[in-house]
Amino acid sequence: MGYLEIRVATCSHSQMINITGQVRDIVSESGIMSGVCYIYIPHTTAGITINENADPDVVSDIIYETAKIVPWNNSYKHMEGNSAAHLKASMMGFSQAVFVDDGKLVLGTWQGIFLCEFDGPRNRRVLVKIIEG
Amino acid sequence: MGYLEIRVATCSHSQMINITGQVRDIVSESGIMSGVCYIYIPHTTAGITINENADPDVVSDIIYETAKIVPWNNSYKHMEGNSAAHLKASMMGFSQAVFVDDGKLVLGTWQGIFLCEFDGPRNRRVLVKIIEG
Amino acid sequence: MGYLEIRVATCSHSQMINITGQVRDIVSESGIMSGVCYIYIPHTTAGITINENADPDVVSDIIYETAKIVPWNNSYKHMEGNSAAHLKASMMGFSQAVFVDDGKLVLGTWQGIFLCEFDGPRNRRVLVKIIEG
Repeated sequence: MGYLEIRVATCSHSQMINITGQVRDIVSESGIMSGVCYIYIPHTTAGITINENADPDVVSDIIYETAKIVPWNNSYKHMEGNSAAHLKASMMGFSQAVFVDDGKLVLGTWQGIFLCEFDGPRNRRVLVKIIEG
Repeated sequence: MGYLEIRVATCSHSQMINITGQVRDIVSESGIMSGVCYIYIPHTTAGITINENADPDVVSDIIYETAKIVPWNNSYKHMEGNSAAHLKASMMGFSQAVFVDDGKLVLGTWQGIFLCEFDGPRNRRVLVKIIEG
Repeated sequence: MGYLEIRVATCSHSQMINITGQVRDIVSESGIMSGVCYIYIPHTTAGITINENADPDVVSDIIYETAKIVPWNNSYKHMEGNSAAHLKASMMGFSQAVFVDDGKLVLGTWQGIFLCEFDGPRNRRVLVKIIEG
């Protein structure tokens, strides 16, 4: 197979958006029963991670704390001024791999898949592909 | 194939546990000669990384330094109080992918695969799956 | 298939080196039209990440800022004295997975694949494998 695309319009400068439902739909519509599902973001100031899907304070704490660890203003040379976003994207990662079993994503009870926006608001694309096996 | 599970009982609040041997056993028993082996943790306050397998001071330094970078108490909103563990898990990552060649894991000389516990002690599961190719 | 190897001689203590061209060549020579390409580093003080390929100030800002976040001297126990490099490698990650479609790597416009050297100069190996699907 090729890959499918999820489009997400982020609405603040830094936020984490739960995209688990859209990924589940792609897995379900693929008809693939067993394999690995890749969720990949083709940007450089946004990442993809997994984290708690229950209490939204968890992801807002992650956004708050990453901003303290990687300050926005810090004598960076990159003229666009968003080097902190580039580093935070590399820290979270650009893809996640989740197993598919019995036609479904194998996530832990509390796990959700999140787009991490670090330089929004922007229109973002997420690419999803499943390898059977 | 589906996936197999490793169970790990962690014994301190924050620690890294070498699970390379258990992963090697799964690869060996699978009989798969070539492919990619995925090591995935279905939790949100523990991660999976690769690092030095020789001097145990390396992983204890990693635990020590991540605790300095992401302080446990820091005006987090999440009532459970373990937001630092959630962020550290995202920083380390929830899975690693290691090649399988000639029926064996392709790890560098000094590389081991580690479960990173950031909110223990707990009973943790690690899922392992191999895609042939 | 098995895997192929890229050799990189790094020339400073900490730097990011764009290896996208070498990975593209391997994909092209493989003749594989659709799949996932894995870029894996078998070391413990260097990582692999994706980030901006246009302005070299972005990756030099990432190197500068990671050195502030993870100080080189910090009461580490590991006698070799390079624990900061080990942690930075785990933060960036040891592999990236990029889709292959129509025989080509599917990277975003601004994305490049980078070897992250954190304890150089050294001779580094990067392993590349493609799973069809």
